[in-house]
Amino acid sequence: MRKIIVQKFGGTSVADTDKIKNVAKVVIREKQNGNDVVVVVSAMGHTTDHLVKMAKMLSPNPSSREMDMLLSTGECVSIALLTMAIQAEGYDAISFNAMQVGIMTENIHSKARIVDIKTEKLRKNLEAGKIIVVAGFQGVTEDGEITTLGRGGSDTSAVALAAALGAERCDIYTDVEGVYTTDPRIVPNASKLAEVSYEEMLELAHAGANVLHPRSVETAKQFSVPLRVRSSFKLEDMGTLILGVDKMELYRPVAGVAADLSQARIVVCDVPDKPGIAAGLFTALAEENISVDMIIQSYARKVSNTNDIAFTVDSNDLPKTLATLDKLKDTLGASDVKVDAEIAKVSIVGAGMIDRPGIASTMFETLAKLGVNIRMISTSEIKISCLVDKTDAQKSLKALHTVFNLESDVVADVKGDLPDV
Amino acid sequence: MRKIIVQKFGGTSVADTDKIKNVAKVVIREKQNGNDVVVVVSAMGHTTDHLVKMAKMLSPNPSSREMDMLLSTGECVSIALLTMAIQAEGYDAISFNAMQVGIMTENIHSKARIVDIKTEKLRKNLEAGKIIVVAGFQGVTEDGEITTLGRGGSDTSAVALAAALGAERCDIYTDVEGVYTTDPRIVPNASKLAEVSYEEMLELAHAGANVLHPRSVETAKQFSVPLRVRSSFKLEDMGTLILGVDKMELYRPVAGVAADLSQARIVVCDVPDKPGIAAGLFTALAEENISVDMIIQSYARKVSNTNDIAFTVDSNDLPKTLATLDKLKDTLGASDVKVDAEIAKVSIVGAGMIDRPGIASTMFETLAKLGVNIRMISTSEIKISCLVDKTDAQKSLKALHTVFNLESDVVADVKGDLPDV
Repeated sequence: MRKIIVQKFGGTSVADTDKIKNVAKVVIREKQNGNDVVVVVSAMGHTTDHLVKMAKMLSPNPSSREMDMLLSTGECVSIALLTMAIQAEGYDAISFNAMQVGIMTENIHSKARIVDIKTEKLRKNLEAGKIIVVAGFQGVTEDGEITTLGRGGSDTSAVALAAALGAERCDIYTDVEGVYTTDPRIVPNASKLAEVSYEEMLELAHAGANVLHPRSVETAKQFSVPLRVRSSFKLEDMGTLILGVDKMELYRPVAGVAADLSQARIVVCDVPDKPGIAAGLFTALAEENISVDMIIQSYARKVSNTNDIAFTVDSNDLPKTLATLDKLKDTLGASDVKVDAEIAKVSIVGAGMIDRPGIASTMFETLAKLGVNIRMISTSEIKISCLVDKTDAQKSLKALHTVFNLESDVVADVKGDLPDV
Repeated sequence: MRKIIVQKFGGTSVADTDKIKNVAKVVIREKQNGNDVVVVVSAMGHTTDHLVKMAKMLSPNPSSREMDMLLSTGECVSIALLTMAIQAEGYDAISFNAMQVGIMTENIHSKARIVDIKTEKLRKNLEAGKIIVVAGFQGVTEDGEITTLGRGGSDTSAVALAAALGAERCDIYTDVEGVYTTDPRIVPNASKLAEVSYEEMLELAHAGANVLHPRSVETAKQFSVPLRVRSSFKLEDMGTLILGVDKMELYRPVAGVAADLSQARIVVCDVPDKPGIAAGLFTALAEENISVDMIIQSYARKVSNTNDIAFTVDSNDLPKTLATLDKLKDTLGASDVKVDAEIAKVSIVGAGMIDRPGIASTMFETLAKLGVNIRMISTSEIKISCLVDKTDAQKSLKALHTVFNLESDVVADVKGDLPDV
């Protein structure tokens, strides 16, 4: 049976007709490899911005249903144009919007989740030898309402299509060459990872590495779809393969380091050490739709029978957070609320750290030698994060990148027999 | 029961966000009159041209299916933006594309005909008090293929929706103020008609008056939908009402005069006067998709037993026509083929001429007094057309306009009780 490859091209890859012609060549190359090809595309370059601008000129607060009707047109333009470009090269191709395919979502506008993808029309057209071009970012409800999938939606469309079709692989073509050990703008000798696990990718994404939207990685993980992130302009570069940790040889404890400078720390001081206090606080924040990242509760002080609760939120949520705390001040009985926005979260991520002791201590020692004061620590199975002063972020990142040997990509090739593109 | 009014706004009426705001006001005004309103819009201004240009950059001959996918996006942008503008004024509104409504067409791309319109979703939303904004120009097949309706398609969408919903009236808002007795660019004292019959409108359109596409008028006639052509910028002007001739008082023999300068005349000389010659000729032309307008066959010459066949075609079809004639030359056995592209068809149109003798002779006399040589004549029940030299077209049109008293619009108001807007 022929293998199915799903390819996804973002807005910068289809920004103008010349770039669309380039994408057509990349698509055809995969078809020439003997694979069936399903292509997912985003809206051209600045189309979405232009549409949003017009909407804002007509309404201060346009309804999310009509925004979805509006924004979904961008992808419908790209799919038709790319299909024409492929046909012009002599290959049979056909475009479908989400409604035509049956990319079924929840009935929620602007951030719907895919619940099902009909594959009948896709399979019929693949069997007829056609290259299929599908509109990313959009879906449709049972009632025929058009929805969009929110940020990173086209990546999610591609991964979900790959899962539904049992595709061999999902290639995400983008304007970067792959996933790096850290942000090359901060650490110039960051190196590209040949492979990374879904879990590491998720932690890196949440820690500030924005190559793929976490939702698409979660979907790939859930359905074990191998993902490849690669450049549409450097085809000889195989990019980074993202796959299950079970399929990797864990030769390295740390896959990458990341810094997140968008957080703010809040310390609620001297709250009574009794059950329900923390629960009340974080439930109230959740009700306001505020995501809390790190949480530390100190040991209770024996004399006063109080403790401190420290946590971090996105800086944008700071005003809302303080307003919520103000409403709770009688219940909390706190002596003070301290806020610090001049902080950074520095993280090391690696599926290999699970079985290797000493990784955390190496991190702490490295920061200590630099004279960096650690304000908070949080750990998961594959990530260790330290909250430091914002001014210490860059040197911390560089030092950690060096100490964990991330300069050169020593990663072995993928095990097994993955097809080349 | 509340009356349903269908309104249609063309591309110039929604060319930018300010114009869309203006359209929202026109729509709301109709809603405030106590009517249910369904609005049909075209793509914004030059959107279609822009999309076509990109397509041509990608493919010399883009597939008509993908062109339909591409061009249908233009209307999807307009409907969302207009709906937002209406909502911003505090009115409940919802947009639907053709797929969502169920505007069912034949499975022919770029010029599909509507075969059915589902009204369930529309009625439900009207009952909920919503203003409905529908994408014009597009349709969908049983198989979920997106089609477009060809030139004048949005007018046809509006009329077909009005017919399906049993609407009180279909208002076509455009950049002209109505239907004129003739082209005001040629005859400056042309006057606006308060009413005109479907038949007259069809003959005027075919004779070169391009306010409405003939297909929309035919559909309106078929389903007896009263049509009003009016300006979206001069709301106090009631424009022109187009309705069944049975609903009009036929006070005037001639409703308008028109000139068509796009035709060419061909005379096939001395073909044998035997059965099947004309049929063979026009069947061959039809197979090449060439529309023939006027046809004159001379009386057979007794001595040679031959006659001449003269006909007119669109000048653009002239090369194809001559090539077809060349292929038939042995069968036809003609002595010569003469071509004249420097001609004009001047027509008078009026449903009232049916019962009034002398209209034709008045026309011929008027042209004779001007020294205009009539090359061909054709007549229908409500139209008389004379083929004249192109250089005679303007003076013929002016003289006919005067002799049939078209300077002032003497048309009485519509009989019966049509609602004002």
